[in-house]
Amino acid sequence: MKIIVVGANGTIGQAVVNALETRHEVVKVGRNRGDLTVDMTSPESITAFYERVGAFDALAVVAGEVHFGPLNSLTAADLQVGLQSKLMGQVNLVLQGLENINDGGSFTLISGVLADDPIAYGTAATMTNAAVEGFVRGAAVEMPRGVRLNAVSPTIVTESLDSYGPYFLGWDPVPAAKAALGFVRSIEGLATGRVFSIKGVV
Amino acid sequence: MKIIVVGANGTIGQAVVNALETRHEVVKVGRNRGDLTVDMTSPESITAFYERVGAFDALAVVAGEVHFGPLNSLTAADLQVGLQSKLMGQVNLVLQGLENINDGGSFTLISGVLADDPIAYGTAATMTNAAVEGFVRGAAVEMPRGVRLNAVSPTIVTESLDSYGPYFLGWDPVPAAKAALGFVRSIEGLATGRVFSIKGVV
Repeated sequence: MKIIVVGANGTIGQAVVNALETRHEVVKVGRNRGDLTVDMTSPESITAFYERVGAFDALAVVAGEVHFGPLNSLTAADLQVGLQSKLMGQVNLVLQGLENINDGGSFTLISGVLADDPIAYGTAATMTNAAVEGFVRGAAVEMPRGVRLNAVSPTIVTESLDSYGPYFLGWDPVPAAKAALGFVRSIEGLATGRVFSIKGVV
Repeated sequence: MKIIVVGANGTIGQAVVNALETRHEVVKVGRNRGDLTVDMTSPESITAFYERVGAFDALAVVAGEVHFGPLNSLTAADLQVGLQSKLMGQVNLVLQGLENINDGGSFTLISGVLADDPIAYGTAATMTNAAVEGFVRGAAVEMPRGVRLNAVSPTIVTESLDSYGPYFLGWDPVPAAKAALGFVRSIEGLATGRVFSIKGVV
């Protein structure tokens, strides 16, 4: 399969590439570097990106920003960061990619464990991740030509504990390689409209 | 209690008012008519609205628009309708209302059964409703001064079958008065961060 990985330079993105590239042609995509680049917050950038990609069998997104901060100073503008990047960036990659994807292909988006399990400072993440999962459930039932659409919802990954660990005290992290399994399940399996939740014991 | 009902003129909104006004002071709010008016898509209108409302004990929102249409012609602009109205309209009513709400008060938002159970033409509704529920889960844990935050997720209501029935063939509708019970449970109970799902047998 020809598989596009958007966010290939990130912690989980690299693990997804590693898990797929022994069996498949993997096109690594980043915002500023990679086989191709795309700014997922820009529909025009996505259009230009797909003109260069051509036909493909699977697209995995392991990218998207959200704001972290306390509720008592949360603004509508803070929430727009996630809506524009992690939500609509991924949604537009799907909607605009429908013309290029081969019959029976798959899109796999990323949400995150905070969708179900909130933490302090995480309102925007919980809202945005839930919206991504809603889009996946909603759009999967109308996908044409056997195209599938899933999400992967990873917990905090071990490699990111230095950055985010203090927000996730008591959470059981998983290695990025485990989070990557969700993408492999989605791409190589038959599921659609599903959220693959990748987490530890708590 | 002084309870604000935004969307008081709608089918479910009227039922919410009926269920509450025998025991409470209910302020009925609509876009164009009511005791007060507010355009929930406009943060400035919400600011002006709260200046007139003053302090209150509970706010229930039974309003918000989303686009319905097939996936194969769905655009980012179509999705923005729900993000701006049903999602951020409700979110801004909460964030901007935090200054006015009394200790131990409650906000109750509306999502909808499509959050969990998608139908044809419903991608925007599923995505938007899921986002509303995500906001509720995410923000509830950081609410100050004992303020609670819940959502009600009603299925298709009997009174709306003439308009929406063809999209919900086989679904078991409930009367709007049953959907209103979710708001009563949220306002009069102790729950927070919860989604009250109001539906029939299927």
